[in-house]
Amino acid sequence: MPDTNVQVTLLQLDNYGPWTVTPEPRRESDLQSLQASLFADVSRAFGAHDGYVFFTRFDNMVAVTNGADASAHARVQETVRNRYPVTVSLSVAADASPADALAAATRRLQTAGSAQDEARTEVLAGDPIPAGRRTPEDVRIAHFDVDDVTGRYTDRLDAYDSHLTVERVRVELMEYLRERHGSLAFFVGGDNVIAVVPGLADRAYDDAIDHVHAETGVDLKVGVGVGSTAHEAGHGAKHALEECRADGTRLERNADAAYGD
Amino acid sequence: MPDTNVQVTLLQLDNYGPWTVTPEPRRESDLQSLQASLFADVSRAFGAHDGYVFFTRFDNMVAVTNGADASAHARVQETVRNRYPVTVSLSVAADASPADALAAATRRLQTAGSAQDEARTEVLAGDPIPAGRRTPEDVRIAHFDVDDVTGRYTDRLDAYDSHLTVERVRVELMEYLRERHGSLAFFVGGDNVIAVVPGLADRAYDDAIDHVHAETGVDLKVGVGVGSTAHEAGHGAKHALEECRADGTRLERNADAAYGD
Amino acid sequence: MPDTNVQVTLLQLDNYGPWTVTPEPRRESDLQSLQASLFADVSRAFGAHDGYVFFTRFDNMVAVTNGADASAHARVQETVRNRYPVTVSLSVAADASPADALAAATRRLQTAGSAQDEARTEVLAGDPIPAGRRTPEDVRIAHFDVDDVTGRYTDRLDAYDSHLTVERVRVELMEYLRERHGSLAFFVGGDNVIAVVPGLADRAYDDAIDHVHAETGVDLKVGVGVGSTAHEAGHGAKHALEECRADGTRLERNADAAYGD
Amino acid sequence: MPDTNVQVTLLQLDNYGPWTVTPEPRRESDLQSLQASLFADVSRAFGAHDGYVFFTRFDNMVAVTNGADASAHARVQETVRNRYPVTVSLSVAADASPADALAAATRRLQTAGSAQDEARTEVLAGDPIPAGRRTPEDVRIAHFDVDDVTGRYTDRLDAYDSHLTVERVRVELMEYLRERHGSLAFFVGGDNVIAVVPGLADRAYDDAIDHVHAETGVDLKVGVGVGSTAHEAGHGAKHALEECRADGTRLERNADAAYGD
Repeated sequence: MPDTNVQVTLLQLDNYGPWTVTPEPRRESDLQSLQASLFADVSRAFGAHDGYVFFTRFDNMVAVTNGADASAHARVQETVRNRYPVTVSLSVAADASPADALAAATRRLQTAGSAQDEARTEVLAGDPIPAGRRTPEDVRIAHFDVDDVTGRYTDRLDAYDSHLTVERVRVELMEYLRERHGSLAFFVGGDNVIAVVPGLADRAYDDAIDHVHAETGVDLKVGVGVGSTAHEAGHGAKHALEECRADGTRLERNADAAYGD
Repeated sequence: MPDTNVQVTLLQLDNYGPWTVTPEPRRESDLQSLQASLFADVSRAFGAHDGYVFFTRFDNMVAVTNGADASAHARVQETVRNRYPVTVSLSVAADASPADALAAATRRLQTAGSAQDEARTEVLAGDPIPAGRRTPEDVRIAHFDVDDVTGRYTDRLDAYDSHLTVERVRVELMEYLRERHGSLAFFVGGDNVIAVVPGLADRAYDDAIDHVHAETGVDLKVGVGVGSTAHEAGHGAKHALEECRADGTRLERNADAAYGD
Repeated sequence: MPDTNVQVTLLQLDNYGPWTVTPEPRRESDLQSLQASLFADVSRAFGAHDGYVFFTRFDNMVAVTNGADASAHARVQETVRNRYPVTVSLSVAADASPADALAAATRRLQTAGSAQDEARTEVLAGDPIPAGRRTPEDVRIAHFDVDDVTGRYTDRLDAYDSHLTVERVRVELMEYLRERHGSLAFFVGGDNVIAVVPGLADRAYDDAIDHVHAETGVDLKVGVGVGSTAHEAGHGAKHALEECRADGTRLERNADAAYGD
Repeated sequence: MPDTNVQVTLLQLDNYGPWTVTPEPRRESDLQSLQASLFADVSRAFGAHDGYVFFTRFDNMVAVTNGADASAHARVQETVRNRYPVTVSLSVAADASPADALAAATRRLQTAGSAQDEARTEVLAGDPIPAGRRTPEDVRIAHFDVDDVTGRYTDRLDAYDSHLTVERVRVELMEYLRERHGSLAFFVGGDNVIAVVPGLADRAYDDAIDHVHAETGVDLKVGVGVGSTAHEAGHGAKHALEECRADGTRLERNADAAYGD
């Protein structure tokens, strides 16, 4: 089983918390709009290089950036500076384990200074994977969703209870995948969770789905894809998830991914 | 203790799930960008009327809209139609209990049809509070954050474990406030949770903070505000939270809110 | 013939030119994106109050803001400060003549300091029309377009020559309307020019169209509307222009506007 | 004097005019916001490949896209479809003459059908320059601005007369450069005109500036740059323009560009 070599970028807004309350608390609807617009922009910017960005906490975002080199990272940093009242620090690391990659990226940024250190701005740390060392199976993505979320929840429960159900499922899944498999799972809207995973056997996915069912009573299904970039792997995973929907199965792998794991 | 009369709007994208995979799955970075931009826009649109919008699941958003009348709601629906490839249904309800208001809004929308019914588009249901029945204490907001999140978590843990910590805290707080007090709490980025609450005694906030500490080990603090709109109440809550920070306390109420509860 | 009382707001980015080259020239694609996004945002912000904003020079924009009071103006200024790396000054004036209104607004801002004075930021000058003095015919809009622009130009000439043709037409029309009638005309994309006009007889429109034809050989048509806001007047004008298209006429007035002028 | 080989892309919104009035005229502030947002997005998308996009008529935009291959173009088309209620057709051509390149791109699109043909959507025509045939001097940019526009116009004239002055200057310059040198000049905000030019001697710039002065009384200055992409050439031009400002000259070439022409 070949190792993945996933490239993870941590994006951290510089000294953002203090900025939001200086000289006095800023209007919440503006902050919400700022955070969402900035995320939308970096999502498109890395998306142009077939990367994925997850909003995470908004002031800290996590991206899978295989295919984006140092100059692409510098360009994202520049465009944020030129179009927003805040700046961003970036730290990149790669590893067979998504969790270890993010941990390494985090350490590099922490070494450079506190997230609320006024003097620590626009750090650009770490090294993207050299073009010559990239492989067609560097990224593995598992795309989970809730089985029949509309029929069972959205159209039946009130909107908040549907939301809380998705929240509970999500946190259970995130913790399980993190602890067991060093994988990073993120909420991406609706009832969707996208996980950046190492090579995992079918059994691992079955166990994860069983675990979530046992804890919450909710049924998940999952599509798995592999590729040289987040988009390739994630798009394969989406197609696999469509197969689950069509065939009533709960785990499918994209054809191209069949032998990858 | 006077009743709140909070006006809650449920925003639901019409038939969004099927759209995202028709004719085949759409690129994830575009979907992320679309969802975030649309949220940013409705946040500003209701923000112009001193309302708050929470992204919730992105395909279902929840807003506190005291001060936005029926034409303001219709205007939001129109601007989404004119600028996005998707449309949105809106349902409004008011109640002393935030949870009951949202439940009523949800029922009205469910009665009109399924979220994935192709024929159910651009519903505009429910009735905003008439101008003559609004009061200066209709909205109560409690703004929670994690005590010293940067020093204890962001600068120490890796980015994902910080994120998971905030996630766990959030879900505990959301469930507790929902079950005990019929209040609606939402993640708004960073380590911030904004809760739409009925009138609550100090004891209720202390118990909530104690509960979260017992379950997760994390310390929260909270500022509480009241007003005729989400912005007034929420801005008071932010100022109160700044007092917590300045004074080392864990619960403050905005001066104007002192007698409201 | 009752006087219009159009309320015009000049929006001027503070010290923008120097900012674009400090500490060295900023990337043009970022500047283009910043300017366009900021314009899109203020367009929606005043649009929520049924106002129109014209991009003009982007660093100086002109808005028709009947219906937006002082707090709506302050809110626009605040949201720009909270979401952009630049700030904006606003100056408001009203007059029966659109050109005189803008001239008065400009003088107020010039009195406060130079557009490139570092110390002159976030001016908020002038007084919106009090609610009690507004009338249903305060705003008159004439919406011009080029007759059969697609068939005669876009599908025949190369893209640049089509563009230049529209440019020539536009400048001729702008100068003519400004000098003869104190009206302000703005390019709004495609082959469309929207003019803020005082009450004008049919003869005045005929002469303007004849003048442009004589100078450029291009035929225009025009719809005219009146209302209490830019949106009301402008929407009437659009409907009138549709009548021109349907009936092959070159001047129509919205029914509601028939007696206004 | 080596030939430039500028790659020009025409972007044309499909059937946009009819869409804006179907089923009835859409709200102008939404259309303004839609057009500006879409332009901002494609500006950033091509900007990620060091391209420039000019808003031109908004429904027809012109881009200089050396460095953006066929898949980058397809990606822009996809992201517009996924995030907007309209679609876009793209046509690419390269030539030593910017005007000839755009003319060729236009013809390819016209051959595919009318801009208002409902059946003609998402054309992707033409061929980007193969990577192996690109050179470091493919793009030449001349960046013009008005000498002391703030002191002479913005701070003195009213906002509309300043605007009209810039408009007159712009159209004179655009026509002159188009007819004499087959170059494409575009307004980019403020008092700035960016021209995509072939290799031109100093005399040609002097004559252009003299011509504009003779017609309008306004003094221009210009910085010229050359590079393998619009950004490289344009950034050189901006630096050269800063030299004009510093030294009081009216024509400077970026050092790297000194031997290019």
